[in-house]
Amino acid sequence: MATELKDFSKLCVHTLTTKPWNLKQCIKNFSAAGIHGITIWRNVLEGQNLSSVREMLNDYDLEIVSVARGGFFPSVKKEKRQAAIDDNLWAIDQAFLVRAPVLVLVCGADPKQSLEKSREQIKEGILRILPQAKNAGVKLAIEPLHPMYAGDRSAINSLEQANQMAEEINSEFVGVAVDVYHLWWDNNLQREIQRCGQNGNLFAFHVCDWNVPTRDFVNDRGLMGDGCINVPQIRGWMEDAGFSGYNEVEIFSDKYWAMDQKTYLEKIKNAYLNYT
Amino acid sequence: MATELKDFSKLCVHTLTTKPWNLKQCIKNFSAAGIHGITIWRNVLEGQNLSSVREMLNDYDLEIVSVARGGFFPSVKKEKRQAAIDDNLWAIDQAFLVRAPVLVLVCGADPKQSLEKSREQIKEGILRILPQAKNAGVKLAIEPLHPMYAGDRSAINSLEQANQMAEEINSEFVGVAVDVYHLWWDNNLQREIQRCGQNGNLFAFHVCDWNVPTRDFVNDRGLMGDGCINVPQIRGWMEDAGFSGYNEVEIFSDKYWAMDQKTYLEKIKNAYLNYT
Repeated sequence: MATELKDFSKLCVHTLTTKPWNLKQCIKNFSAAGIHGITIWRNVLEGQNLSSVREMLNDYDLEIVSVARGGFFPSVKKEKRQAAIDDNLWAIDQAFLVRAPVLVLVCGADPKQSLEKSREQIKEGILRILPQAKNAGVKLAIEPLHPMYAGDRSAINSLEQANQMAEEINSEFVGVAVDVYHLWWDNNLQREIQRCGQNGNLFAFHVCDWNVPTRDFVNDRGLMGDGCINVPQIRGWMEDAGFSGYNEVEIFSDKYWAMDQKTYLEKIKNAYLNYT
Repeated sequence: MATELKDFSKLCVHTLTTKPWNLKQCIKNFSAAGIHGITIWRNVLEGQNLSSVREMLNDYDLEIVSVARGGFFPSVKKEKRQAAIDDNLWAIDQAFLVRAPVLVLVCGADPKQSLEKSREQIKEGILRILPQAKNAGVKLAIEPLHPMYAGDRSAINSLEQANQMAEEINSEFVGVAVDVYHLWWDNNLQREIQRCGQNGNLFAFHVCDWNVPTRDFVNDRGLMGDGCINVPQIRGWMEDAGFSGYNEVEIFSDKYWAMDQKTYLEKIKNAYLNYT
């Protein structure tokens, strides 16, 4: 059983959840709504002075939970793999400059090669950026993605696989981000969350819901309570495994992006207290 | 390594693959194209005299590989679960009357209850129809579906789960249908195919491909070679595990359904020899 959520002290919202807002609007409005945590997507960091971003987070008393996202390591082309390394090194710098403790990795896949090959390249990529992550004090969270993204977004599609990779790399700077959207269907999920916690690898927890029916492969995620995921059950498993971090609301939704975003933020808060 | 496919002696096509055709057109055109196996979907059996269908299959020298599909057992409503049982009993009768050795089960899921509960109801449903299946000599093949269908189509989303259920039921009349579309992403697939074969549970093998990108949750399957699935590798695992049945082409595709279906059948044959 998960602990009851009575306030917003562990609520984090991703900037992409309120995509119509720029970074300044996210920070101001999250803070005004009494939200304590923010995960910043790199699209809203583009062109920003990162020291000023850091100051603004301080001014508005928002804790930065992570930067999203690095990854996309695999490619049949060597120069693309190198470009991914360079981009990840920059992402680590960005995370460092805004003082984010974690960089989330969407690991990537190239449909022109096998998933095994893509996984090798993911591991190689993580190992290449790991020294810089250590220097910067930025942890890397492997996020397993739903199997429907195995073609081109991630060759890591279960918590079992993410655990295995994190354990192979065996660094306190490499762990896992658990997202209910990607993993809710897996009957080994509780076991793998337990394993992840035992190894000290539970770095992040993302929540949303699975709409039935789902109409878009990317931008039709539900708000907690909209769909069929038992979020409190999975949150309970996270807590049982020792996780005490933020519950991060990460929702890509054309429907919710079309709403007034302040009204939406209140809906998120309500769904957080009642269905998370 | 899979054996080389040099002819069409193990090629089976599903009637839904050529959806624009009625059953008579499927039988005539498959046979004329030198295809030996057919899996009949129940939509084209509606309103047919099943003895006449059986005779027509004989006349055109087509082997019926299976009838698709039964299942959809779970529901929060008892009367719906009973209706599913009744429908499955009728499906077994249909399979018997056209002399199909196998009925494929798409097991179902109800988003209003947990996957565990849905799985219990699936098992209960299979146990209820099993005596009739035995009497009819019709085997039941549990088809694990891709996790993207866990919300409302199937609470069985990996070969591991299907194996477990078949082993629990432990009847020579209950086994598994392996479909590359649903299972290709699973890094435990080879191990689970081996296990399935060892238990005598490999009842069917369905092939198609995963398009990148995929634009529709149901009707955007690819023809072998179109996408990123290594079909020959998986077919090799099936053969290694003792499977010697038909390779069944099951493709739902708005794109291919819009083509001249005879031309499409030739494309299927080409893809069969070169990418299966």
